[in-house]
Amino acid sequence: MHLELDGRGPLQTQLVRALKDAVLSGRVAQGVRFPPTRALAQQLAVSRNTVLAAYEQLRAEGFMQGRVGSGSYVATPITPAAPVPRPAQRGLPETDYVRRLRACHDHPRMPGRRVEGARYSFQYGVPFTNPLLTSAWSRALAHAALYTPPTYPTAHGSPALRAAASEYIAHRRGVICSPEDIIIVAGTQQAISLTARVLLDPGDAAVIEEPQYFASREALYTHGARLVPVAIDREGLRTDDLPSEPPRLICVTPSHQFPTGALMSLPRRLALLDYANRHDCWIFEDDYDGEFRYDAQPHAALRSLDESGRVVYVGSFSKVLFPSLRLGYVVVPPCLRDDFISAKWVDDFGSPGIEQAALAQFMADGSFERHLRRTGKTLKQRREALLEGLRTHGGEFLEIDDSHAGMHLLVWLRGRDAAQGEALIAHAATRALGLYSIAPYYLNAPDRAGLLMGFGAMSVAEIGEATKLFGECLRETAP
Amino acid sequence: MHLELDGRGPLQTQLVRALKDAVLSGRVAQGVRFPPTRALAQQLAVSRNTVLAAYEQLRAEGFMQGRVGSGSYVATPITPAAPVPRPAQRGLPETDYVRRLRACHDHPRMPGRRVEGARYSFQYGVPFTNPLLTSAWSRALAHAALYTPPTYPTAHGSPALRAAASEYIAHRRGVICSPEDIIIVAGTQQAISLTARVLLDPGDAAVIEEPQYFASREALYTHGARLVPVAIDREGLRTDDLPSEPPRLICVTPSHQFPTGALMSLPRRLALLDYANRHDCWIFEDDYDGEFRYDAQPHAALRSLDESGRVVYVGSFSKVLFPSLRLGYVVVPPCLRDDFISAKWVDDFGSPGIEQAALAQFMADGSFERHLRRTGKTLKQRREALLEGLRTHGGEFLEIDDSHAGMHLLVWLRGRDAAQGEALIAHAATRALGLYSIAPYYLNAPDRAGLLMGFGAMSVAEIGEATKLFGECLRETAP
Repeated sequence: MHLELDGRGPLQTQLVRALKDAVLSGRVAQGVRFPPTRALAQQLAVSRNTVLAAYEQLRAEGFMQGRVGSGSYVATPITPAAPVPRPAQRGLPETDYVRRLRACHDHPRMPGRRVEGARYSFQYGVPFTNPLLTSAWSRALAHAALYTPPTYPTAHGSPALRAAASEYIAHRRGVICSPEDIIIVAGTQQAISLTARVLLDPGDAAVIEEPQYFASREALYTHGARLVPVAIDREGLRTDDLPSEPPRLICVTPSHQFPTGALMSLPRRLALLDYANRHDCWIFEDDYDGEFRYDAQPHAALRSLDESGRVVYVGSFSKVLFPSLRLGYVVVPPCLRDDFISAKWVDDFGSPGIEQAALAQFMADGSFERHLRRTGKTLKQRREALLEGLRTHGGEFLEIDDSHAGMHLLVWLRGRDAAQGEALIAHAATRALGLYSIAPYYLNAPDRAGLLMGFGAMSVAEIGEATKLFGECLRETAP
Repeated sequence: MHLELDGRGPLQTQLVRALKDAVLSGRVAQGVRFPPTRALAQQLAVSRNTVLAAYEQLRAEGFMQGRVGSGSYVATPITPAAPVPRPAQRGLPETDYVRRLRACHDHPRMPGRRVEGARYSFQYGVPFTNPLLTSAWSRALAHAALYTPPTYPTAHGSPALRAAASEYIAHRRGVICSPEDIIIVAGTQQAISLTARVLLDPGDAAVIEEPQYFASREALYTHGARLVPVAIDREGLRTDDLPSEPPRLICVTPSHQFPTGALMSLPRRLALLDYANRHDCWIFEDDYDGEFRYDAQPHAALRSLDESGRVVYVGSFSKVLFPSLRLGYVVVPPCLRDDFISAKWVDDFGSPGIEQAALAQFMADGSFERHLRRTGKTLKQRREALLEGLRTHGGEFLEIDDSHAGMHLLVWLRGRDAAQGEALIAHAATRALGLYSIAPYYLNAPDRAGLLMGFGAMSVAEIGEATKLFGECLRETAP
């Protein structure tokens, strides 16, 4: 009997696998006698015990009949698996869901791809790392691990974390809600996925901002929503442009529009709420980085003006702590609470217990507020450094949409079209500078060159160097 | 101007909220003058600076016009929000998804509800807590937190954890795959949710075992799958009963059928694979606790017999470590890989980075194997204690489906119908004993009393006491 061991895992496992293959492939017919253990051991240069153990296993699994000594035979009946096409040839699944999934992910301009080997990168969403946070978080986790019950978490999140979150948003965002209105989720991305499933049937219309956060757009599209883009100006969503045929859902980033940075004005906020009320739509308020404003104190969230339970308010800890944490929260109107909790349960039973406990403690003992103040200061300096660097090194080439908030700026390149923008990005890459186009954040991108410049992850010094290099690239590619 | 502070949060926040309400409710008309700061401070007995700061905020948010000194006025135009119905009166969402969601969750026999105040509970899924594990895990997390990059995780999981998982399942489960075939998910529940979305259009048929794991059933149902139950016997799924009209998906627990404990025989495994091949169906192999067998070594997974890429193999760390961890893995055939990764990305971007790093380390340094051996020994003793206790105290009343594996037994009550079973459970509750019916694990429950008895969380001594009490309850309720 010809056998080949594939060298993966323990010898016995390899031998069992090889013998099964021989049987299942039909190379060894039913009723045929297996070689005596001693002979096989010699043939394969393995110990006899290994062969004995392997035979034992085959017997237990029903591949082999008979006893050691009296001889062992291939069990009957085993229908050898019919010859089958290789995996590569199998049909891919063709559900509507995966078709939409592929349509998104084959998007040629899918953002977030890091420019490899860049010395400086203005990539958005790269967090700014903070040694103080790292060690504090390590302690918080170690402590939480000792005292968190190992049982399944409550689907809507730990009571302690929901209580801490409700205190936090009341104080920071003017959102008054009870811990019972809060559902802990795996970041904003799970929040939009759950919202789409609960509130939208495939085919339902959802208004998105133009431009918008691409990942929310993709979650809605993949779910099957019909996307209705509404333009943004300096006052945020142009509520006059809301469609006459009302959508089921309206997704907005009022406190710091992504990516333009616009702050939605009060009249627009009231108009939006009024529209949602009259047409019975839901509003998804994504407050992804409302924490960081550099002019006035943060404006109250849309949710705090919502008298009629239309707003699903979402906050994330990915920006203010770090993205790999994967924790965020949703504040739902009472009438949506049960459905959202059930949907979260069906999805993953609930978010990890230890990290929830660590975060609750982190918020309760003031570490979180301290971290926010530190981070705010640092980001303010970095933002000023970026603004100054851009004025100094690229002033005449640029038009800056300053937003007084967050961790990024939107920069337009005067007199360059989209193609020239791509050319600049390609050239900058050759100079080891990572630049990122604004185009992927549009459903229908304008023929105008714009860059999304994240500054969270670079020191003031690095920003100085990077903007200098940026300036050179601008000159070298000037039309 | 009448104002009432609601006592939530800092005084200034309360004042801002009260003033906004006055404006938005229309109680203060547009153009009306706000009281001078000093007067208002006296009226409310707050410091004048608080009032000044509140006015500042109102001005910034566009509620107020004019300057301190020359007088401040309610901004015009503000369209006061139209009177709106109370949240309670709002229409609930009526998507197909939530209708199905509610149909599941209003299920009167939704299992897992803990019998309150029970001294002993045979509830399934309660993990057995292990101080050694707790402290080891705390150290692993603290260490991982210091060295894990804070950036967004890779959607399909950390390379280190995927490598560790592929080693583990090759060694323990005979599943040979590359780390690239593995996708880290938030436990089995997310695995079935993703599988349903990727592989099933609403309305597609999915075969489930009867009885089955209710949470997988609900995930499939909520997604819109048409559930086709196929009966279980001592050899596992009755493959002869597979429907002539082929389903898209077949969900099985071959290495330890949940809840009957049946071990699927080799001929049945081959028949199932053959059926899936001929009819081009996918197989969801849920190997939720294959680690713990008390007779032979665990049988090779169905996936290890799958020559043609039909099997989605799923393992969980919830049972072998602890449920609040929320980490599991999916081994997908090559042709499904990209779609599953995209689906995971759209759902939540990826699982938490630090816990993945901690687990990878835990597996790489042997702590995990040590834990498995310890746990296996303990569970073996507890299982034997349960079997002995049941024979001693309830022998003549019971029929035990012994499965030589896992953390639970299925026990039938001789000559009692479902109603009598419920009566026993109710009576046991009055004796502070938690018993759990098997009925919720059936799509169509038989009129026969059965109990699912989890033994993972009770010590040998407790199991002795609990079975004694169980015996008394059996006698006290004997028909």
